[in-house]
Amino acid sequence: MGAMGPTDEAELAERLVDGDRRALARALSRVEDGSEAVLAHLIARLHPRTGNAALVGITGSPGVGKSTLTSALVAVWRARGRSVAVLAIDPSSPFSGGALLGDRVRMGDHALDSGVFIRSMASRGHLGGLSWATPQALLVLDAAGFDVVILETVGVGQAEVEVAGVADTTVVTMAPGMGDAVQAAKAGILEVADVFAVNKADRDGADRAVRELQEMQKLGHGAWLAPILRTVAAQSKGVDELVDAITEHREWLVREGVLRERRLARARLQIREIALATLRARMGEVDEGGDLDQVADLVAQRQIDPYEGAARLVAIVER
Amino acid sequence: MGAMGPTDEAELAERLVDGDRRALARALSRVEDGSEAVLAHLIARLHPRTGNAALVGITGSPGVGKSTLTSALVAVWRARGRSVAVLAIDPSSPFSGGALLGDRVRMGDHALDSGVFIRSMASRGHLGGLSWATPQALLVLDAAGFDVVILETVGVGQAEVEVAGVADTTVVTMAPGMGDAVQAAKAGILEVADVFAVNKADRDGADRAVRELQEMQKLGHGAWLAPILRTVAAQSKGVDELVDAITEHREWLVREGVLRERRLARARLQIREIALATLRARMGEVDEGGDLDQVADLVAQRQIDPYEGAARLVAIVER
Repeated sequence: MGAMGPTDEAELAERLVDGDRRALARALSRVEDGSEAVLAHLIARLHPRTGNAALVGITGSPGVGKSTLTSALVAVWRARGRSVAVLAIDPSSPFSGGALLGDRVRMGDHALDSGVFIRSMASRGHLGGLSWATPQALLVLDAAGFDVVILETVGVGQAEVEVAGVADTTVVTMAPGMGDAVQAAKAGILEVADVFAVNKADRDGADRAVRELQEMQKLGHGAWLAPILRTVAAQSKGVDELVDAITEHREWLVREGVLRERRLARARLQIREIALATLRARMGEVDEGGDLDQVADLVAQRQIDPYEGAARLVAIVER
Repeated sequence: MGAMGPTDEAELAERLVDGDRRALARALSRVEDGSEAVLAHLIARLHPRTGNAALVGITGSPGVGKSTLTSALVAVWRARGRSVAVLAIDPSSPFSGGALLGDRVRMGDHALDSGVFIRSMASRGHLGGLSWATPQALLVLDAAGFDVVILETVGVGQAEVEVAGVADTTVVTMAPGMGDAVQAAKAGILEVADVFAVNKADRDGADRAVRELQEMQKLGHGAWLAPILRTVAAQSKGVDELVDAITEHREWLVREGVLRERRLARARLQIREIALATLRARMGEVDEGGDLDQVADLVAQRQIDPYEGAARLVAIVER
């Protein structure tokens, strides 16, 4: 394989926008593994074609049935004639284990449907958190023309809050007896919920879970009061209503100008992340050039302290 | 409380080096919560006084008995007349739960011993990973004059590998039936081990665990062949031998010049982290100044792409 020039990226971008699924898969691999320079070319070409997809985040603790719910949501949107892409964030550590394989097999219900695209992406380093490639991958799926792009996190804690930073509508999924509302509140998860789905709602404790959420909401909420829906994803129960709630939330976002605000905040975050990556890459060049070694040697010998060393490195980077 | 000037930091540093435990606790809080400027003053003063402590990392999956082993190690070092500080990294997410409280109570055996200092630190964001404040905290404990500084991770996966980046000697702890050697090898944990402790060695499967590690080592190892020790930390069995192995490893590090190399690599990493934090802080200033808003607006409106936006931000930061 030769080096990728801007022309290759331009061609890839064009094929992707035209609906070529192989080009899409390749572009996503580029997002995961490609160099910054290659990615910059690709994103520059795709970015003007984005902004049409509804970005929906599905989050919640392990075991609440996120993947089953995602699959059921896909089915409802397909029945309504919308194309759907799913980006599932998998924790990269072999220690987290879990039902990933089973999840993907279940999503296989949609394997033969060309209006559905499913892709898993490792979370790299941040255990269960979102890799910084996530916004880029969403942008690629948006440019590919999907009406709905679902971001499903498999992680815990951090990822559940981070997903709200990149989605238009965040669905926080819970299940009876699986971690209570108080715990979720502590982790800052209630605040990021645009819609609550109490899944496995045919089980004991569903009423209590709904009541707890209602009680928490009485303590305060923003301009949008997140509706609390009951679903039994495995039987596709309540999923139509969930899609309605997500749609209503999006209409509200547009009507109130909140979508514009969220996109602005997202752009700000993304710009900062890319800028940091750029500066980090430049530091890598300084490292390879041997300049950092000299500074590090002075620090290791206690002739200068690490902050003085860092100041010298920044000066070299900015030279 | 008024603003902290360089003079306050100088006094705090002096009291800390003189053995004042309250000053030490305060300095560590400064590391966790203080501004970069305050921290820089403090570290600048402490850094010349560091380099004497043996930095020992204790890592391993949850449930292998790390905290019990740490407590037993502290007892052995104390019996040999060495002062010991323990820095325990706690995952910050409320979802990770676990036996933290119990662990700290157990460490209470040493509560009345002035030659022992124990401190927990949140891992902030990186679930189970090390916060970037960790190297600074180790530096503070080193400057406080402890002969041995133990870094104990409570996390999984990432943290187990990261700990090796900041410790002189990394003890990888395992237990019969708790995650096998193959899994550890996949996660890159075997490579970072300087000493293996098969804890709970009185249980069934200990022989198998040791044999598996030996088999993995036959596939290849570096200049140092990590010894595999059996411990029953709850009964203090094998812990003397573990301290001997850690001591031997340190003597080897010094003899072969590897300690110098590791310190150089550490300094390099630390300088880069601080430099990045500096640049990130400058971006924050740009953000507050409103310049980033303008760029983000252009990106959100698809007039420029995020990479072009990032390039503009970098230009502003370097102005």
